[in-house]
Formats: sequence, structure tokens, C-alpha cells
Amino acid sequence: MIDQPLVVVDPLPRTLDSICDPQTRQRLERLGRLVVSEEHPLEDAEIDRLIPEASLLIGQTAMPRARIERAVKLKAIFNVETNFLPNVEYQACQERGIWVLSPTAAFATAVAESALAMAIDLARGISAADRAFRAGRERYGLAGNEGFFQFSGATVGIIGFGELGRALRALLVPFRNPVLVHDPWLPDELVRAHNCRPAPLDEVLSGSRLVFVLASVTAANQGFLGRRELALLQDGAALLLLSRAAVVDFPELVGELRSGRIRAAIDVFPEEPVPRDAPIRFGGENVLYSAHRTGGMREALELIGRMTVADAELVLRGLPPQLCRRADPALASQLRSKPVAKT
Amino acid sequence: MIDQPLVVVDPLPRTLDSICDPQTRQRLERLGRLVVSEEHPLEDAEIDRLIPEASLLIGQTAMPRARIERAVKLKAIFNVETNFLPNVEYQACQERGIWVLSPTAAFATAVAESALAMAIDLARGISAADRAFRAGRERYGLAGNEGFFQFSGATVGIIGFGELGRALRALLVPFRNPVLVHDPWLPDELVRAHNCRPAPLDEVLSGSRLVFVLASVTAANQGFLGRRELALLQDGAALLLLSRAAVVDFPELVGELRSGRIRAAIDVFPEEPVPRDAPIRFGGENVLYSAHRTGGMREALELIGRMTVADAELVLRGLPPQLCRRADPALASQLRSKPVAKT
Amino acid sequence: MIDQPLVVVDPLPRTLDSICDPQTRQRLERLGRLVVSEEHPLEDAEIDRLIPEASLLIGQTAMPRARIERAVKLKAIFNVETNFLPNVEYQACQERGIWVLSPTAAFATAVAESALAMAIDLARGISAADRAFRAGRERYGLAGNEGFFQFSGATVGIIGFGELGRALRALLVPFRNPVLVHDPWLPDELVRAHNCRPAPLDEVLSGSRLVFVLASVTAANQGFLGRRELALLQDGAALLLLSRAAVVDFPELVGELRSGRIRAAIDVFPEEPVPRDAPIRFGGENVLYSAHRTGGMREALELIGRMTVADAELVLRGLPPQLCRRADPALASQLRSKPVAKT
Amino acid sequence: MIDQPLVVVDPLPRTLDSICDPQTRQRLERLGRLVVSEEHPLEDAEIDRLIPEASLLIGQTAMPRARIERAVKLKAIFNVETNFLPNVEYQACQERGIWVLSPTAAFATAVAESALAMAIDLARGISAADRAFRAGRERYGLAGNEGFFQFSGATVGIIGFGELGRALRALLVPFRNPVLVHDPWLPDELVRAHNCRPAPLDEVLSGSRLVFVLASVTAANQGFLGRRELALLQDGAALLLLSRAAVVDFPELVGELRSGRIRAAIDVFPEEPVPRDAPIRFGGENVLYSAHRTGGMREALELIGRMTVADAELVLRGLPPQLCRRADPALASQLRSKPVAKT
Repeated sequence: MIDQPLVVVDPLPRTLDSICDPQTRQRLERLGRLVVSEEHPLEDAEIDRLIPEASLLIGQTAMPRARIERAVKLKAIFNVETNFLPNVEYQACQERGIWVLSPTAAFATAVAESALAMAIDLARGISAADRAFRAGRERYGLAGNEGFFQFSGATVGIIGFGELGRALRALLVPFRNPVLVHDPWLPDELVRAHNCRPAPLDEVLSGSRLVFVLASVTAANQGFLGRRELALLQDGAALLLLSRAAVVDFPELVGELRSGRIRAAIDVFPEEPVPRDAPIRFGGENVLYSAHRTGGMREALELIGRMTVADAELVLRGLPPQLCRRADPALASQLRSKPVAKT
Repeated sequence: MIDQPLVVVDPLPRTLDSICDPQTRQRLERLGRLVVSEEHPLEDAEIDRLIPEASLLIGQTAMPRARIERAVKLKAIFNVETNFLPNVEYQACQERGIWVLSPTAAFATAVAESALAMAIDLARGISAADRAFRAGRERYGLAGNEGFFQFSGATVGIIGFGELGRALRALLVPFRNPVLVHDPWLPDELVRAHNCRPAPLDEVLSGSRLVFVLASVTAANQGFLGRRELALLQDGAALLLLSRAAVVDFPELVGELRSGRIRAAIDVFPEEPVPRDAPIRFGGENVLYSAHRTGGMREALELIGRMTVADAELVLRGLPPQLCRRADPALASQLRSKPVAKT
Repeated sequence: MIDQPLVVVDPLPRTLDSICDPQTRQRLERLGRLVVSEEHPLEDAEIDRLIPEASLLIGQTAMPRARIERAVKLKAIFNVETNFLPNVEYQACQERGIWVLSPTAAFATAVAESALAMAIDLARGISAADRAFRAGRERYGLAGNEGFFQFSGATVGIIGFGELGRALRALLVPFRNPVLVHDPWLPDELVRAHNCRPAPLDEVLSGSRLVFVLASVTAANQGFLGRRELALLQDGAALLLLSRAAVVDFPELVGELRSGRIRAAIDVFPEEPVPRDAPIRFGGENVLYSAHRTGGMREALELIGRMTVADAELVLRGLPPQLCRRADPALASQLRSKPVAKT
Repeated sequence: MIDQPLVVVDPLPRTLDSICDPQTRQRLERLGRLVVSEEHPLEDAEIDRLIPEASLLIGQTAMPRARIERAVKLKAIFNVETNFLPNVEYQACQERGIWVLSPTAAFATAVAESALAMAIDLARGISAADRAFRAGRERYGLAGNEGFFQFSGATVGIIGFGELGRALRALLVPFRNPVLVHDPWLPDELVRAHNCRPAPLDEVLSGSRLVFVLASVTAANQGFLGRRELALLQDGAALLLLSRAAVVDFPELVGELRSGRIRAAIDVFPEEPVPRDAPIRFGGENVLYSAHRTGGMREALELIGRMTVADAELVLRGLPPQLCRRADPALASQLRSKPVAKT
């Protein structure tokens, strides 16, 4: 039908099959006339041809200012890769009243549940004890628990209190951990509203038995967990590195881990796949290895589709989006995410 | 002082050091005149000499009816091993108005947090992925998550809904799992009060993605999870065996695990230490091994002391105990617990 | 049928219609052979005739030791009036292994929700403002809120932390009130487990903006809230008297209220109906009057039936009861409840 | 100092004293150079003189496009009256990257606690019973509860699920009410994330025992609760009108109330103060009157200050605001709020 809005879908490296369950796919198709390019990214000529008519753009298509200015019907751009990248001229979109959106919270549940299980694993020695059992050197009862501590009630630190941090915090409630939070982008009021205590970075590091590193990487905070900061961790403390490897000085972290002074769960690495000879592969008993797999669950990917379609429905009705995050031009330019390959 | 109550402490295999932090030890000593035997169990002659004067007995001392009848000042017996054993003539205590108590909930927090972490481990493949990483065959992102499922929102079954089951249920709240409960000793009203759905055993087994086995062993329920019942589990379901190995037909369980059809976390075994050649040691990727270590934490042991002393204080003031479980004569005789060696 | 257990039902002043919904009535009738006396209390001759065969007794029938000794099949006595009265020789029941039970928690939900609403009413002036509006002297917005305070976050004191106190505490969680608890029958550990701070009576009175009086009356605590204690309340503090009038020195309370220094919600009175000329009828703006009606809801009465029948089912199967409270002989004799007339 | 940002404060009808506690006032003054006009609104000439240098504008100053274009340093405008009014050319601000913000959630806690207490009052007859007591015609216990119902577990409907609706929903959690939500501006996913069931308006009205009306007024929804909709309410249902009177056909509501078929708590009226002879003043037993006072608490006003200052601090650091709501140009123009006089 001629009046239906044009919806351009250019989702690679995602595919619609990966991010839409059947019901969501149906809702997507009811949004309007769909032009979908999943074999290859939309070519420039094609996008230039479509953009003056497009009401929605779903994907990571390059949107420089000139193209945005021709997009006279465009209401929203949905980034379904879930990191705001420099492909969009954010300021131009803002001036034109075009929403730039991304369902960044889609992975929060999957990562948070993994993060909690890994934290309890480090505190209680679950996978280490499994390894010992398989090797026939298990120790029973109290003897098997030597050197471990109860997670419930232990002081927890969270560095970076965005969607993921808050999802994790909600899971902690029944465990009654005191929770320290460091997030320089947030007011103390917001941290306290989640029953956490705002604290400077050094206090979070030195005052917690377990520290979750959930911070985004920006130009300003690369490597902010360096030798000095890691040295602040308590003996036997557990560090969980779950957001971006670049926030930590990785060689220093490996050094601390090889010394056995602290324990860590690591889901992100400076180079992935991790090279065969990378020092982090030293295989200590105090490390829990995870190959960038805390978030990439089918259930999380399908949330990308559901959140995108639900907000697209609102936007086409002239209403503000409710589930996706809105790009802040100032902030988007600071983020230093790399495009994902597989998650 | 002559008026102080006599408190007989005969705690082996526990020791006061293992179950009392310094502050609890002080409170214990303020209860009255203490006679403590930690090197060896109190000898019969000694206990016979002391019992007519004793106000409290803390320990697993043999208390046949004849001795109970001579215990004219006795107000309470505290079992600090935390399983009601046949050492006490429960009916005789009831007739005499002597409380028989045990801080059985002391381990609930420690076991529940382990149980949750193990469940997420099985759902998400955390220790299996760590093992793959150490072997240099890790897979990243989505590929690494093949065959695993999100724990949040998955249907959970709980068999045996006592103190441990309820502690676990509280931890599940933020994950929003539908929870099915089977416990033939409890009214449906109580199960519903914890926001769970009461269900027959077969429905719990066939309807849940993860099943926690937390039931006590009685004369009546030994081996109640046999071939037929295990076959009801969904393909890929996770079984967590955390209370007593005797509730399951262990060879059948091993068979199901070797077939790879289900996954399991096992903390209790028919024989501990597990013999070198026990079939359960087959080392499958679908098993999480734990050497009877989910409960035996220092923090849990110290709760034994705190709960015992707090209730002892009440009992000496003529008030009912509030933290320990009371032995039910009818039930105590049905329980088939073995004395613990180390936990 | 000859093998069916005999269930004697002697519930006055309750009637089965008042405490059983149709489904519960059916479950009751399936328990066994019922003998029901609702027109008048069972006569002595009749009860003496029935008691040797009775398995369950539901009601407040007199049970002196001699009768208990003849009750050779009796497993449990259910007090459905919900206050343990001196009608039963509790010690004799304990010796014989007869449960003496009462669904005392049946009223907790109904009372707790009323208590919370009344507390917010006193803090925020809801009924006072409604009264002003009806009189045509309402004040709008900020002006109308002069002298009132926000309930959320205000420090709350609870005196008496039994089933009702804990039901109320659960309702407070989202309001984030710090909660002080005074209950001399409970260990501090239990109070802390509910995220409250145990405190001496004087500190609860002087440190709280709102004080809930939920304590039972015993021989020892009659009038324990006297002139000195009431004087400890903060100016403008709210007292909620919801359990038994006898715990407070009522004339002193009336005096404090007439002075206007504090506010109060009162649901229980020394004499009910309250005499026409009782000083508490002075009608101050700082009083919220309630004619002993916080508990007596149909929904609560029907819980009496459900809890009783559910536990009766367990007891007949040889299992311990789970929903009713068990009489403690020592404590039951201290309680000074009057039989209810209408609730 | 010459480099300090200029902060223009033009807060009338608010005053800084009313919205800032001393600590917040200090933080405000540390933001930069303050120009404050509290005696009268800033005059046009003055604002025109200041605007080219201003970094922040706190107040409801007229900001037409021409003025916005001269505001070359302006980063944010804070509406502290808390309703987005047509004083700002929102689209122009968006184009210039100027945040237009308002701490609209400041009143949510105060209103939500009142709303809950009023709902329980209507369900349980609290103020009606107080009135009866004062008139000497109180009825005790069960008799006094005739016609009322337990709030806990009753089905609740919420119309309009913004900040206030979500604050209220959080308070309902321990009461276990099923909650139906109607909000045409929100996706079902968001409603379900709060454990509510999204439902069409008619189903919310006919399926709930209590209905909270929390919707904003727009050009499109004035009077959307008319005769037909009110007739859908169950006999005895409770309607709570707490947002804007204009969403309901007020004469129809008064008619339903006079008939006695439903009950209602009313905090907002078509004309305030309510005229002496307004029909709503009929004074029925089924009405709870509140003179627009659920929100206007000192604690709520001070939140306005705290939220404003906290976000101002972030904005001056180049970070996005976190506590205030952002004006959506499309939506702001639809809202039909009147400036407040006193709240």
C-alpha cells in the first residue's frame, strides 16, 4: 500500500533470524513496507535511493549529515548491534528530531546472571573444586572449603552502574551484600536509590571482597584499572571483568593473578580469540575463564528484536520510545566500542 | 556461683572453636556454669553424675528414658551436629517438657547460594566453558553458548521445601522463575505463600528445566528418584542433588548422565570419599562435581553457635526458643540421617 | 465407616459458616466422621462420651487433665477462636503428645494492611483532611499539609514482633523506613533477619516517628506503656494501638492525646463497646478511631478454617502441623487474653 | 570568577527556600555565578541581557526560538514547576542540543504513599468508621466491616503508568494484588517488566476492585472516563482520581457516587478551591475527599531541588542528566497541564 511507512532493515552483522522470534518477525512486518538487506550491507546507491522515503532505519548503515538531511520522513534509527558507533552523525539527527536508539539493555539479564554465578564460583570455589574432583584430588566438607568465603553478606563493589550494573544489583538483593558503587557519570542520588553506597574508585577496590567491572570504555578511562588500582584489592578478593578488557591494564592484571594474590573471572580479552601464547592462559586455580560468552545467548538476541519492534511501533505513532536507549550526541562520541564480530 | 545453671557441653564431633566466634563464646560462658568435654565424648559415669543438676545439654549425648527421668532440672537439649539422631528418647523429653532443639537452618544460606550458582553453571555452561578454555578449545560468543539456556525465567522445580528450599526460593525471586514445589509433608497453602505452585512429583520432574533435590531421607522415601522418575526429566534438564544421595537410585542417575541426556550437579554421594573406581567419576561434560562442600563453611558453623546460644538464653528465661528447629518425636524417628564426619 | 477418625467440632463462638468457605467445608467433611455442635457448646456428658474415640477436637472445649487422659486417640486440639485460653491443661497435652494448635496468624494480613493505612493516615492527615473538606474548611496543597510528614523513610518502631509484626514489616519494605523493634521474647538475631534493628523499649519510643503497639498482654506487661513511656514519644509522633488495650495505661494515653502532643490510631479499648462518656471519645483531630475492626474480616475468618483443615490433614497423616501456632505450655499460661465476643 | 558558568534562576511560583534544603542550596551555589530572581519573574530585558552568557536556566522563563538562538552557551533548562508548559520552544532546544528537563518524579513518592493509604481506606472503610465512631454510631468487629473488603490480593487497575504509577506499583508488591495496567503510550513489554498485565481500558475498569487514575491530560484524552466507562466499574469498586480532574467526566462521576454504586477518593477537582455549592460536596459515606494535597509535601519539594542540582552538576560536566525527565518535543506539545498555584 502506498501509504505504508517504509522501513529499511540493514542489520548486519545481525540477521533478522538471529534477533527475531517468529512473533516479533510478524510484528516487524506489520510496521510497514520492509526493505531488508541481510546478504550484504545496503549499498550506498541503494540507501541513497531509499532514504528520502524511509520512516525507520534498522541497522548500522552509515548516516553522515548529508544523508540525514535528505531523510525527510525519517523518525528513528535503530542500532541493533547495540553499541553506538561513529556510523551516525548524532548531532545532525538530534537537530532533525530523529531518534537514534539501541536496545542496549537486551544483554543485561544474560550477563547479570552469569556474573552472579561467576562471583559465587570465585567465592566458594565451585569450578576449582569440580576440577579437583575430576583429577581425583577432591577434599570433602570443611577441608574442601579452605580459603573460600561465603558470598552472602560479603561486601560487593560495582564499577560502572548502567543497565547491566542495575540488573546485577537486583539479583543481589536477597543475598544482603553491602554494595559500593563507583560510576562518575551518575549522581549519588541515583546510586542510593538502588540501595547502594556511592564511593570513590579506590574505596570500592579496597573495601570490597568482590569487584564487578562493568564500565564502558571511553577515550578517558582506558586502562584506568592499572597497577596501583589492582594493588588496592584485598588479598583473596575477586575481580570480575565483564564489560571491556580495555578498562584494565591487562598485563598488570595477569601479573596479579599469577602471583595468586587475587582471583578473577574474565569474559573479555584484549584480543579475541585469545592467542595461544597469551600470558593470561597460564591456567591458575584462581581464574575463571569465559570466552566472551556471558551475553551472547539466543534469549538476549531475541530481546534485541522485541525491544526494537516495540519502540518502532511507538515511534510510528508519534510517541517517545520506551525500551531502547537514546544516543546522547556528546556521550556517543566518547564511547570507544569496537563493532562486534559474533555476540 | 551456686545458683548458676549448669550447662553441659558435649559437642563432638563439633568443637566449640568450630561453632563459636569469640563473641558467641562469651555469651555461651555467661549462660551459667559450663562443663565442657571436647577431647572425648562425655563418659556415661560423668553424664550420670551431672545430669540431675544440668539445666542445658549441648551435644549429642545419649539420652535414654532413664537418664531423662533423672534430669529433673533439664530445660533443653541442643543437637549441634544439626541432624536429629536416635541418641535421644524424644517422646520422653516431650513428656517431661524438655525442648529438643537443633539449629538445622544454619547451613541453609551457604547451601542455597552454592545451589543457585551451580544451577546457573549448568544452564549456562560456566565451568564447562572454563574447562574448554584451559584446554585451548574454547569457542567465543554465540558459538560458545550452543546447547545452553538462560536461567532467568526458566521453570524451576524444588523437591523438599524445608529451610533450605525456602532459602533457595528467596534467592530466585529476582530471576522470575516459575517455581514448582513437591513436598508431601507440607500443605499447599504454605507452598503458595512462598509464591510457588505445589505439584506432584512427576509434574515437577517433567515440567522443570532445573530440578533441585533438597529432600531429607526417611525410611519411606529412599531411592524415590529411580529409573522411571529420572526418565521424566526433559532432555537437557539439570538435576541438582544437594541433600542426601540416598533419595536417588544412584546407578540409574549415573546411567542417565553417561548417556548425556541430562545434566547434573552432585554434592552428595552414596559413599564418601567417593571410591577411585566409582562409575560417577566418568567425568562427563554434563556433570558438576562437588565433594560434599556446599554447606561446610566457617560462616555456617558459626551460625550453629549463635543460634544455639540465642535460644539457650531464651530457654533459661522460661521463653520458647525461636531459631532452632524443635524435634517432633514422630518425625525424628523417621529420619535416616547418618552422623556427619566432617561437615 | 467404622475406621474413619472421629472429629469433634465445638467451635462456638465461631460457627463453621463463618470460618469455612465451601471448599474448606468440603475438606473438613472429608477428614472423617464429624460431630458438630454449633447451637450451643458441647455438654460435658456429650464430650465425655465422645472423647475416648476422638482423633481431633476443633474448638474451645474444656479439656482438664482427667479428660485428656481419657482421650487416648486424640492427636490434636484446634483452638479456632485464635487465642490460647486456660480451657486446656496444656502440660497434660504435651505429655500425651497431643498437639494444641491455633491458626493465630489468620488475622495478620487483615490487621497489617489496616495498620499501614492508619499509619499513613496519621502521618499525612488523610482522614483529618477529609473531615475538613466535609466541613467546608479544607486547605489546598502545601497549606493543607502543614504539620504532616512523609511516611516513606520515616523511622518506625514496632513493639511486639510476632506474626502480626512480621506481616506489617513485610508491607513496609518498599517504603524504606528504618525499623526499630522491641520484643523481649525474641533474640536479636531473629529481629535482624527481618532487616530491623533490635532496641530497648525506651529507644523505640523516643527514636521513632511512628510506633506500632502489637504486643500481647501477659501477667507481666499489663500497662507497660505508662506516663513515663508515653512521655518519651517525640512531639507529633504517631502511636498505633492495635493488639490489646491493656498494654497501655489508657487514662495516661487519653491525657497525652487531649494535650495534642502526639497522635494515635486506636483499635482496641479497655471496654468495648466504648461507653458513651468515655474520655477517649473527646474527638480530637489527632485521633483515628477504629471500633476493634482491623482484624474481623470475612477473608481472615476463612483463613481460620483453611489453616485448621490443612493442619488437621497433616496431623491425621502423622505429620507435624505447618500453619497453626503450637501452644507452649509455659507461655500459654502467661497470656491474659479475654475470649472474643465478635471478631 | 570570570570563568564560572552563569546560572540563571527564575523559579517562580517556586522559591529556592521551598525547593532546597540547606545542603542542596550550597550545592546550587557552587554550580557557578548565580543570578536569582524570586521576588518577581525575570523581566524580558534582564533575561535578554543574561541569556547569551547563561550556561543553565532554572525556571519557567519564556524561551521562544529567537531567545534560544541567542543562548549560545546554554546547556540546559530546568523546569522546577514540574509540568512541561508551552513557555519553551522545545523543538528549537532540541536542534541546539539544549536539554529541557524537569524533576517530574519528585512527587511520586508522596503521592504514591497517599494513594495506597486512600485505597486501603476505601476498601476497609477506615475514615468512614472513624466518622461513625465520632458520631457515636460505631459498630464493632465483623459488624463494623460489613460491605468492606480486604485490600491484599484484590485486583488493582492502574490507568497511566508513568513515574507515579510505577512508584505505586512498587508499594503494592507485598500485598500480592494482581495488577492490570492501561497506558496507551507504553509497550506491553514495559508493563510486564513491572509484573503487571497490560490490558485495554474497558478490561481495567471492569476487572478491578480498585482503579487508580494516574493519567496525564492531553488534547486527546480529556474526559476519557465518561458515563460508559464509569458504568463498567464493578459494584462497590473504588476509583482513585489522583492526577488530573479533566480526564474524567466529572458530573458523571458525581452521579455515580451519589447513587452509592461505587466509592472514590478524589484529590483533584475541575475547579480548585472547590466552589461551596459544587455537587461533589454532597458528602457521601463512599467518598474520601482530599484537597489536592497528596503531592505537596515539603519532602517532595526538596526533591525538586536535589534532582535539579544533581543533574545540573552532570550537565555542566558534559554528561547526560540522570534524574530529571527530558522533554520530548512531540509529547510536550500535547500535554495540557495548567500551571500550578500552590503545589
